[in-house]
Amino acid sequence: MPSTHRAETFPANTPATSQIFTTVLSHGPLTRLEVARRAGLSAAAVTKAVRPLIEAGYLVEDADQEAPPALGRPANLVRVDGGRALFVGVKVTGDEIIGVLTDLCCRIRVARRVPLARRTPPAVLTAIADLTQELLTEADGLGVRVQGLGVAVSGDVDRAEGSVRYSPFLDWRDVPLAELAATTTGLPVTVDNDVRALTVAEQWFGDGVGLSDFAVVTVGAGIGCGLVVHGRVVAGAHGVAGEIGHVPVDPAGPVCHCGNRGCVEAIAADGAILARIRAATGIEVPDSIAAVDLARRGDAAARQAYAEAGAAIGRGIATVANLLGPERVIISGEGLAAYDLFAEQIRDAFTATAFGSAARCDVRTRPLPFEEWARGAAATAIQSFIGSDVPPRPRSARLQGTVASSRPDPQDTP
Amino acid sequence: MPSTHRAETFPANTPATSQIFTTVLSHGPLTRLEVARRAGLSAAAVTKAVRPLIEAGYLVEDADQEAPPALGRPANLVRVDGGRALFVGVKVTGDEIIGVLTDLCCRIRVARRVPLARRTPPAVLTAIADLTQELLTEADGLGVRVQGLGVAVSGDVDRAEGSVRYSPFLDWRDVPLAELAATTTGLPVTVDNDVRALTVAEQWFGDGVGLSDFAVVTVGAGIGCGLVVHGRVVAGAHGVAGEIGHVPVDPAGPVCHCGNRGCVEAIAADGAILARIRAATGIEVPDSIAAVDLARRGDAAARQAYAEAGAAIGRGIATVANLLGPERVIISGEGLAAYDLFAEQIRDAFTATAFGSAARCDVRTRPLPFEEWARGAAATAIQSFIGSDVPPRPRSARLQGTVASSRPDPQDTP
Repeated sequence: MPSTHRAETFPANTPATSQIFTTVLSHGPLTRLEVARRAGLSAAAVTKAVRPLIEAGYLVEDADQEAPPALGRPANLVRVDGGRALFVGVKVTGDEIIGVLTDLCCRIRVARRVPLARRTPPAVLTAIADLTQELLTEADGLGVRVQGLGVAVSGDVDRAEGSVRYSPFLDWRDVPLAELAATTTGLPVTVDNDVRALTVAEQWFGDGVGLSDFAVVTVGAGIGCGLVVHGRVVAGAHGVAGEIGHVPVDPAGPVCHCGNRGCVEAIAADGAILARIRAATGIEVPDSIAAVDLARRGDAAARQAYAEAGAAIGRGIATVANLLGPERVIISGEGLAAYDLFAEQIRDAFTATAFGSAARCDVRTRPLPFEEWARGAAATAIQSFIGSDVPPRPRSARLQGTVASSRPDPQDTP
Repeated sequence: MPSTHRAETFPANTPATSQIFTTVLSHGPLTRLEVARRAGLSAAAVTKAVRPLIEAGYLVEDADQEAPPALGRPANLVRVDGGRALFVGVKVTGDEIIGVLTDLCCRIRVARRVPLARRTPPAVLTAIADLTQELLTEADGLGVRVQGLGVAVSGDVDRAEGSVRYSPFLDWRDVPLAELAATTTGLPVTVDNDVRALTVAEQWFGDGVGLSDFAVVTVGAGIGCGLVVHGRVVAGAHGVAGEIGHVPVDPAGPVCHCGNRGCVEAIAADGAILARIRAATGIEVPDSIAAVDLARRGDAAARQAYAEAGAAIGRGIATVANLLGPERVIISGEGLAAYDLFAEQIRDAFTATAFGSAARCDVRTRPLPFEEWARGAAATAIQSFIGSDVPPRPRSARLQGTVASSRPDPQDTP
């Protein structure tokens, strides 16, 4: 492998530098003054932080062409030079892996999908390594270094430790994925829960831009949730957070794969809906496409299964609203394909359950293909690269020492 | 009223100053270097911020007597001068109001309780004004100015607006309490949800010190919750947050006063337990003391009512853990008097429902009398005074402009 894939160090020695870079990344081009205002920092701090980033080529400066010329020398605009670095993002599902090559602005340059024959850690690792190698070759063609790999996996993922503690869909327990993938790819690796990774992309470039408190809820094979509170994605003190799928909404409900009863996921995940239709109709519905079709053709049992799923999702979203009072909830995921079958029930259950002004929350849908999830994984790699995964003002010393990216031993670098 | 009760201005012109003051308040006495480390700021920033606070008398400096003399000039310790300012905190319950006079370190100097004959806004306002007047007279005796009044009320309270949107126990809707109380007392007033106020006191001085993510869950007449995420109390974009009492845990459960069915509060609040015992036994149990007594004497229906309450509380706490992954959950409230009757069920339901490593959360109990809640109200007044209610690094411009304290018109000052 060419030496161009050895990682560089981003010149961010303070949390403020990462914060300034992130501000320019998601809101730029901006004047220094506007950066200072948005980041809540002094103009002097911004000027000081911006200098080494411009010198290293991560930020560039242009004259503001739109400023009225009559007002004298126009203020310069600062923006991220997307072409300065590349990143690989990989989303692992039960059936395939989706990989993207993005630039530093997290714009997708190349996207690839490969089917997954088996779900064992060695099989998935090999597939990740092969796909990454393909994308590294593309990067060579562009003549730009790849600075990191982000891998997004569903389940209980500890980003700080780089390990997948429990992933029901992959049937994994305690897999040190960051370390393993760093060894096989030669890249610094960030591993995160897939919905949290998607939430980072939404916060930086999607429907969460400019909001300090919002949630992304994904419906489909599983029911997931990414939470942004006080401007930062919630990771949980022990790695678990956003598990809306395991919010218990019905003690008399079906048993969930987690062992508990009546979780949102046990009622509203694709598999749960299929099981419910099969039990009620005796029809061996093979997949969600067939289930949706059956419901759209008016089958009462199929319609009822989707209605119950919608009510469970609506109660789950209202629970998030009652506890956290987000400004917005973005519903996404492949389950949106069936949205017409449960939209009304989601809304009704949300309205009935949201307490007081929590009901003012803006609940909206937004289709995001798996490439966007892979882009989210790339965004987590960018976070690790620029150091923005470190809290700007840590309150808990215990959380301060953790490092989110696992860098391979130099001897292992091919 | 003497002019000593006109409020001063705290010399905090940046969020960093408030943060430094809060750090010294909850961890001090500290050296400047230690303040810098804990606040995640540079030593220069701390030195610059500390100077005007020392000049104005809010911080004082002492030589570190415990430092080994052999190491040369000992580093000076910075601490808050508690006697520099006084605050009044009031907690309103359905039956009484509890008021405390605290110093700037939120140490209680005087505590008073007065029964509440009626719950209408004018009746409660008069009681608050009378109690505050008593405490102001005490402050006169101490020769120190009272700089603010904090009022804590249960329900949907918008601190930024200073209004009680909906308080079921008081049967209030849209009461502009901060403005009204500012007019009657002549003090700057901060109004907040009572459990959020208690959570501020726990964060500064209680079992939440040093934690970036924790929750306070209160059981009793209502079921409440205060959440600290990323080091700050969650207020909610629309004022509602921490409404664990309205997390829906059983769609077949009893109807809640909020109109929904199967909320934690509809199963586990004192009134819900009493109703359940009455319905099952036909015994007209007058209050919680009698209900606890009946259950302790072995009455199966009463024991069952407490067991179900415990299971609902445990599911509610596990929901918080699954969504936010806090390091600790502190259970408190007057309902702890019955704790032996549902402790096991809380723990069992929590363990069954917590997903993956969310179960590692430290769940503990801590009895806190209503004077501690009033102290929390005083803490919110201190927050408003020192400006620490303004987010240190706001991401949402919409939330930036809000002011939490309502200052009376100077002409209204008696």
